[in-house]
Amino acid sequence: MINQDLELDSNESHLKIPDFPWFGIDIGGTLVKLVYFEPLDLTKEEEVKEGDVLRTIRNYLIGNTAYGDTGERDVDLEIKSIQIGDRLGNLHFIRFPTNQMENFIDLCVKRKFHELCFQVYATGGGAFKFESIVTENLNLNWSKCDELDMLIQGVEFLNQINKENECYYFKIEPKKTDKSPSNSVSFDSFLSSSCSDSLSSSVCSSSGSSNSEYTTCPLQKSNFIKQNHTFMNTYPYILVNIGSGVSVLLVKSEKDYKRVSGTSIGGGTFLGLCCLLTGCKTYEEAIDLATRGDSTKVDKLVRDIYGGDYSKFGLPGDIVASSFGNMNIDEKRDEATREDLARATLQTILNNVGLIARDCARNYNCERVMFVGSFLRLNGLSKHLLAYATDYWSKGCMKALFLEHEGYFGAVGCLKNFINRSVIDDSL
Amino acid sequence: MINQDLELDSNESHLKIPDFPWFGIDIGGTLVKLVYFEPLDLTKEEEVKEGDVLRTIRNYLIGNTAYGDTGERDVDLEIKSIQIGDRLGNLHFIRFPTNQMENFIDLCVKRKFHELCFQVYATGGGAFKFESIVTENLNLNWSKCDELDMLIQGVEFLNQINKENECYYFKIEPKKTDKSPSNSVSFDSFLSSSCSDSLSSSVCSSSGSSNSEYTTCPLQKSNFIKQNHTFMNTYPYILVNIGSGVSVLLVKSEKDYKRVSGTSIGGGTFLGLCCLLTGCKTYEEAIDLATRGDSTKVDKLVRDIYGGDYSKFGLPGDIVASSFGNMNIDEKRDEATREDLARATLQTILNNVGLIARDCARNYNCERVMFVGSFLRLNGLSKHLLAYATDYWSKGCMKALFLEHEGYFGAVGCLKNFINRSVIDDSL
Repeated sequence: MINQDLELDSNESHLKIPDFPWFGIDIGGTLVKLVYFEPLDLTKEEEVKEGDVLRTIRNYLIGNTAYGDTGERDVDLEIKSIQIGDRLGNLHFIRFPTNQMENFIDLCVKRKFHELCFQVYATGGGAFKFESIVTENLNLNWSKCDELDMLIQGVEFLNQINKENECYYFKIEPKKTDKSPSNSVSFDSFLSSSCSDSLSSSVCSSSGSSNSEYTTCPLQKSNFIKQNHTFMNTYPYILVNIGSGVSVLLVKSEKDYKRVSGTSIGGGTFLGLCCLLTGCKTYEEAIDLATRGDSTKVDKLVRDIYGGDYSKFGLPGDIVASSFGNMNIDEKRDEATREDLARATLQTILNNVGLIARDCARNYNCERVMFVGSFLRLNGLSKHLLAYATDYWSKGCMKALFLEHEGYFGAVGCLKNFINRSVIDDSL
Repeated sequence: MINQDLELDSNESHLKIPDFPWFGIDIGGTLVKLVYFEPLDLTKEEEVKEGDVLRTIRNYLIGNTAYGDTGERDVDLEIKSIQIGDRLGNLHFIRFPTNQMENFIDLCVKRKFHELCFQVYATGGGAFKFESIVTENLNLNWSKCDELDMLIQGVEFLNQINKENECYYFKIEPKKTDKSPSNSVSFDSFLSSSCSDSLSSSVCSSSGSSNSEYTTCPLQKSNFIKQNHTFMNTYPYILVNIGSGVSVLLVKSEKDYKRVSGTSIGGGTFLGLCCLLTGCKTYEEAIDLATRGDSTKVDKLVRDIYGGDYSKFGLPGDIVASSFGNMNIDEKRDEATREDLARATLQTILNNVGLIARDCARNYNCERVMFVGSFLRLNGLSKHLLAYATDYWSKGCMKALFLEHEGYFGAVGCLKNFINRSVIDDSL
């Protein structure tokens, strides 16, 4: 296991560059994330050295956006013409389901990858689980890296190389066309100790706002304006990684972090429960259902218990007291649609993640909470809810940050360490 | 709203005793909890003053254990021959579903309660929600009390009057007949920062232990020996109230507490999800299913991702990485039984509650975590799991405490305040 703290300095040209290909791979519980650096400055000598197999692979990767039935390249995430390890190239981001890992290895063999011998840095549980099958079938030097180390280093590294294009937040403005107050929020759950500890799960009865992407409060009543944020010298911060499960890290610097909390209720829970409750088959379908659903038909709200607001804590009645708390009532269960159940599942998970993140931010005096992880892919609804909540319960003092390359930081951390390590190895 | 900090001292005989009847009521999201003090030392004069209506009600309450279709008296919880407010009596504990509240009011009218005028202290959301219907139909002086104030005061008061019979913990001993190591625990979830942060959701492949109540690890491998605990001078402690939702309080003294966390994923979520996923109808049925199920068929475990343990943090492979994380896979979904789904639901909720409680205990340097709430009724499985987890992740340094009158503390707090307040009112 590699746990080094070396800095990659691409300007120190006296350091020998590691041989291509440059990959980083993160094999998670649900998705495999692969980062590939495509060199743009190959010398004639290097092209000869590269050989047919590697050239074919390079052309295959960059010439396609889909691989087999399930592999995809996130073209919109590609970072073009960047300088890494003294080389100029494009950084590509590819993913496929972890349950296709063995098919992926077969594909590599078919494409004659096994004729090459090179080093790959890998992280995530699959770096361990698939180690033997990878090394038996491919002629790789397989270096396993700790996933939290790689996550942090990937976040820092990509913020360095992608600078002001990586990190963003949402400026939240009330919609002027909507006159009703936006008070139906609940991040925390039952009997929160502060009226500001909140994120909505409720649907407005008011209609209109035909331009709105959302039909539910509080999102319906707000405009979310994406703002770039240059992420520099912003320690400490809370890093919340929402993958199959959830990890919450306190980051004091790239070299000084600890895992302070986490929960097994994460992205895998969302998809698993949605498959059970709605019969959907994919993450995309589940998110689509959730976007159109109404969780207030599923959850028991404060107003269902109190008959209105809970005055002592200034909590509005729309706050969730008990997730799925109405589903023991036959009539309510009959009324709940697939969309409502998917939305309630999403709200439940986000409320809980947000609550844990808030507790950590409060305990460790952090003003910034950064949300990453593949769960946020294609998931504007969740990001807007998290952004709204963070703003609401901190009364504007706390900020939710997001990163463009949501789920790829572990893989990027591997790539960085690979280049770094190779430089060191070669200079010995 | 009453927020007084008065001490009830039953020995100060110069204080005037409030008139009977003495009730306390807590109307929660799921259950109504009613505490009734049955006087044993009525004077002839008082019996005359009591009148027929009250006598009939008294005899009805203490002469039955079931009321209508859904009301029940918890006979095993009755506290006999205690001295409260200078009076000798028995304390009775009665509950019925909150959705029967209107039927309950009808019953009171039929039994001519509305001919009497007396004071009742009420708490829980229903004290607010049902205030108008109660006061319109019954001639009551309805005093609403904050539910967290009443909870804390009820806990303290019942520990005083029920002394060494109220509080207990479990001494956990490994079963000598079982030779396999008991390492399959997971309180926390994914990638816990400490190998001690754990509670099991996994099933042992080993069989045997025919005397065991449980077929699943780690409970199968442990004996839980109930030990009385005298709860005195044990501040600070974390109080976790698991009702429809969950509240987590830091208690520094009876008069100094704050709500430090909570989640909407609580008992209501357990029942609601079980109704959706298994078609069960009642809490008792859901608990029964869960006791016989195997959550490892539903959850994605560390070993599913890592292929084994996660060595860096010394985490065994049986830890849950993602609750319900296998349910997006068709074959796994087909294999999961109703029992497995109920068990996974229970584990998911308990893991999350335990995690939040642990974070709070750690942040506020508490060695004791007290779990209360109606969710623990008839729920030995959950108590054993919480006890095991608390012991395991603290390496024996942290203790899970339980109280006999699990869900009744809000109602008891009301009773105490009613007597107290009446004393004060009368002495003015």
